[in-house]
Amino acid sequence: MRTIGADNLEDLAIGAAVLGTGGGGDPYIGKLMAIQAINECGPVTLLDVDEVGDDDLIVPSAMMGAPTVMVEKLPSGDEIIKAFQALEAYLGRKIKATMSIEAGGLNSTTPFTVAARLGVPLVDADGMGRAFPEIQMVTFTLYGISATPMALADEKGNSAIINTIDNRWTETFARTITIDMGCSAMIALYALTGKQLREAAVPGTISLAEKIGREIREARRAHRDGVETVLRITGGFKIFTGKISDIERRTETGFARGEATLDGTGDYAGSTLKIRFQNEFLIAIQDGNVRVTVPDLITILDAETGEPITTESLRYGFRVVVIAIPCNEKWRTPKGLEIVGPRYFGYDVDYIPVEERDRAL
Amino acid sequence: MRTIGADNLEDLAIGAAVLGTGGGGDPYIGKLMAIQAINECGPVTLLDVDEVGDDDLIVPSAMMGAPTVMVEKLPSGDEIIKAFQALEAYLGRKIKATMSIEAGGLNSTTPFTVAARLGVPLVDADGMGRAFPEIQMVTFTLYGISATPMALADEKGNSAIINTIDNRWTETFARTITIDMGCSAMIALYALTGKQLREAAVPGTISLAEKIGREIREARRAHRDGVETVLRITGGFKIFTGKISDIERRTETGFARGEATLDGTGDYAGSTLKIRFQNEFLIAIQDGNVRVTVPDLITILDAETGEPITTESLRYGFRVVVIAIPCNEKWRTPKGLEIVGPRYFGYDVDYIPVEERDRAL
Repeated sequence: MRTIGADNLEDLAIGAAVLGTGGGGDPYIGKLMAIQAINECGPVTLLDVDEVGDDDLIVPSAMMGAPTVMVEKLPSGDEIIKAFQALEAYLGRKIKATMSIEAGGLNSTTPFTVAARLGVPLVDADGMGRAFPEIQMVTFTLYGISATPMALADEKGNSAIINTIDNRWTETFARTITIDMGCSAMIALYALTGKQLREAAVPGTISLAEKIGREIREARRAHRDGVETVLRITGGFKIFTGKISDIERRTETGFARGEATLDGTGDYAGSTLKIRFQNEFLIAIQDGNVRVTVPDLITILDAETGEPITTESLRYGFRVVVIAIPCNEKWRTPKGLEIVGPRYFGYDVDYIPVEERDRAL
Repeated sequence: MRTIGADNLEDLAIGAAVLGTGGGGDPYIGKLMAIQAINECGPVTLLDVDEVGDDDLIVPSAMMGAPTVMVEKLPSGDEIIKAFQALEAYLGRKIKATMSIEAGGLNSTTPFTVAARLGVPLVDADGMGRAFPEIQMVTFTLYGISATPMALADEKGNSAIINTIDNRWTETFARTITIDMGCSAMIALYALTGKQLREAAVPGTISLAEKIGREIREARRAHRDGVETVLRITGGFKIFTGKISDIERRTETGFARGEATLDGTGDYAGSTLKIRFQNEFLIAIQDGNVRVTVPDLITILDAETGEPITTESLRYGFRVVVIAIPCNEKWRTPKGLEIVGPRYFGYDVDYIPVEERDRAL
């Protein structure tokens, strides 16, 4: 158990955006909301997964929608409280703590707003070990934990509680409701017990994100290579260095979709890397050959600072380093690959762990 | 207070389809469900609006979606109970009675399923005095009564409870959820007190529908003119007789939309009537001139039997009589016309009561 103050959130937001593989929303927005909440209500207690009682009720809180829209439609901070409390009232049970559903720019810090404003602790864990675009894509699904009852709320005052027969249906209903809410919504879902949490969650994500962010900051201050720092902490691989030569982006069916094209520089001069995304980066293809796919993490870092760049911040001319990070083991099972492997996203390729692909080069 | 048995439902369904102006679903489906419920659980108690206590909680129950789809996706009868009970649990208050939200083929009889299976009475009233395609189009809206909390349930086991800032937003959210549910859903909404009911509802609709249906049946048995019978009871006007020469139909944004073209016969030979619909008939145009518009009722009757024909049953070659019935006075106010007048549906014409249009001929 330790305390997270507004200062820690700067590092946390940066580190979470590394794990967010381009998605999970702009870290700046989630951070602003959380810092304001902590400044007004005091710091947040961070619990290890082992510090939660077996029967304690934990409810992740998050923002859902297209990150490209979230940037322009800043939430007030009230609607996430409303979603969380609506679910608590519906469940008729006291919620012991909240947590992040994903490691991502926005959704690593969003639950801090809930924790600070409602005075509940936050568990050091998440449901992905990275960010993914769809609701059912959490390790909880692999353990049969239902996403519903799920609460959604918007900034206008509309809200909904849904109950679905499986987590894929939750995605269907929540996505269209989110679109009606203006392409972004605040959500509370995947109510689970402490016992389920220990079995099904990815532990330590908040601490890991904070560490990544802190070391990037310290590397910059010491004029050390921020990219190397990230690779060391995450066990990742550098797969490309280059300049963004094209970025195609569209918001459709409630997602930010598109493709970034990078012209290689340095060791990669003459080579081209294409990265396709649906909120998160899904697949990286170098000169026509698959280099990395989901569920492994693809992250674009600023070549200068080592700081991560989200899909909605990608711009022509940015000089970047692309890295790949092995995903959590839970995703490398047949069941895991069924819900987050490349074929789910429409890419007709087998998943091969990035370490193996790297060795084969 | 009186009792409605399975026998009464035959007449009721026919009469309600007259008031349903082509919409509100196929009377056959709602009737089958209600008859089965009454056969299994006993008859339903029908209450006059004056027999409800001021503080009693009344919740209308209905089916929502495109009637064209409902015909092919027969509900089991369980999901309407589920929607009703979900709302009762959410409200945390005992619901005293249910009622129809609209007079229409399906939605006049749907609440009988709830009433019979749950042993609650049904109030002799509705929220339109006819059928309309959208959620907010009820007299309740004119009196500031909220459609939400609203419960929706599908036949697969998915359900939702929504809370919205106004009834137009209820329509938006409920419609997309209904589309996700496969274009039809069972709903419970517009919880209101007995006091609100007496002020805001259209009273006596169930008795009126039953009377219309009974007299059509008796007219047929006595070889009397069924159409004249309907006109006498409803105060309606015959506006056209003809043969359906074209019917264009599409299911889009969760509605059955289209246009029927009729070639005149008898007094109307040489004339053409076009009727446009969105679940319900909205506007009738004779040889380029507007003849009737919403909120007045446009109903197509079988020329032979006087029985009403719903939008999804219209077929090429049918010989029909088109009648118009003055709508409830509540709709003829500026506020009423704002939500159900011709301009709301995209027709750039003023509403003129059908009696006035008829006198002007």
